Amino acid sequence: MRFTSERHLADDILEREFTLGDIPGVLWTPAPAARPAPLILLGHPGGLRGMYPRLADRARHAAAEGYASATLELPGAGDRPRDAAADRARADLRRALAAGEPVTDDIVDRLVLPLVDRAVPEWRAALDALLDLPGIDGPVGYSGGVISIGVRLAAVEPRVKAAVLFAGSFVPRAVVEEARKVTVPLLVLLQWDDEHNDRGMALDLFDALGSPEKTLHANTGGHTGVPRFEADDANRFFARHLT
Amino acid sequence: MRFTSERHLADDILEREFTLGDIPGVLWTPAPAARPAPLILLGHPGGLRGMYPRLADRARHAAAEGYASATLELPGAGDRPRDAAADRARADLRRALAAGEPVTDDIVDRLVLPLVDRAVPEWRAALDALLDLPGIDGPVGYSGGVISIGVRLAAVEPRVKAAVLFAGSFVPRAVVEEARKVTVPLLVLLQWDDEHNDRGMALDLFDALGSPEKTLHANTGGHTGVPRFEADDANRFFARHLT
Repeated sequence: MRFTSERHLADDILEREFTLGDIPGVLWTPAPAARPAPLILLGHPGGLRGMYPRLADRARHAAAEGYASATLELPGAGDRPRDAAADRARADLRRALAAGEPVTDDIVDRLVLPLVDRAVPEWRAALDALLDLPGIDGPVGYSGGVISIGVRLAAVEPRVKAAVLFAGSFVPRAVVEEARKVTVPLLVLLQWDDEHNDRGMALDLFDALGSPEKTLHANTGGHTGVPRFEADDANRFFARHLT
Repeated sequence: MRFTSERHLADDILEREFTLGDIPGVLWTPAPAARPAPLILLGHPGGLRGMYPRLADRARHAAAEGYASATLELPGAGDRPRDAAADRARADLRRALAAGEPVTDDIVDRLVLPLVDRAVPEWRAALDALLDLPGIDGPVGYSGGVISIGVRLAAVEPRVKAAVLFAGSFVPRAVVEEARKVTVPLLVLLQWDDEHNDRGMALDLFDALGSPEKTLHANTGGHTGVPRFEADDANRFFARHLT
């Protein structure tokens, strides 16, 4: 992990861009405190540059409660090399949606599974590096982004102790099966009128998740309309489980 | 409204039992403050005596945030005269559940509609009396209890400005239609593994509610397993809408 830039934001938050191998990422740390800060991994749909304002906002909100936050560019997104097979699957998805046709399991599998297979080991490698830094320590939370990545990470990475998942994207059937293996506390956000998401499938995924303690927060509104108060709820969820 | 007893609880909360005509009720008011306290009506399934510990707990939790709370015995419950038709419908419901048979619309209608028809005017009359008391003023919130009563009250009573509903009982189809007329902000609690409740019907009711701002909190666990943190969430919901 190599830091490539650093700047101070308001409230004494330090924002550092880094590269992990050739993968860009960003780390936000709150004002130094007596104890190391627990870390929240900030998921996103890919494209760090476009997502930056929302990610920085979430990081500021987490820092106010003493958490460090970090994120990593996704495979095939932003400045990272495109993946021709994923691009083809994405084109097939758009075609199906535009034509009002059902999105087949085949399209979802081709779009999401290779992404999860590549991203999860990268985020775990980032964890290795991030938890070696002074001032940061476990436990680790994961929040938002592609829900299949969050599910796999929560299922396989023992350092992730709690996760906030956003039911806002297609989920391969294989990942629904993996969901049964997740045991950490979960807060699942669902936009009730999400134009990019099948509500019934999202509820089925919530049902499948194996965690004894899981909470669903569903709100009226579309994909990007998550109410502001859910950020406070997420902070309180992490406060219950990471501290 | 006639007060029949009063006592002081911890934290300077005043608990007063009253009768409204022949209907018993309880009023909890927080320590006197510069401004009149907003009022929360505490719904319950009927049987004030058995429900008292949980109701007093909710009232204490609300008083800590400056709210007065009040509740009223339901028609046919507690010491109020039994309703033979409702008792027959309840017996039919228990028989169907015990036999693993479907609960018909007819049973639900016979059990719930007369209760709603009687209870809602009583709670509105209680509001008239409660809001005349010194130290209490609107806006009014409604919380918990038989969800059909909460839906009807939110639909017809303009002084109710926000409601927390508990998706924990059967809902007549007529009430699902009334739900479309509700416009106040709602927080709906659903126990995901509720042994007394049909999850699909509860989600359909949430979908039908007409409020532009509505939030569903679903938690793992059975009917009485609502997590403690939901009481804090309810307080914050009321703080957003009643103050």
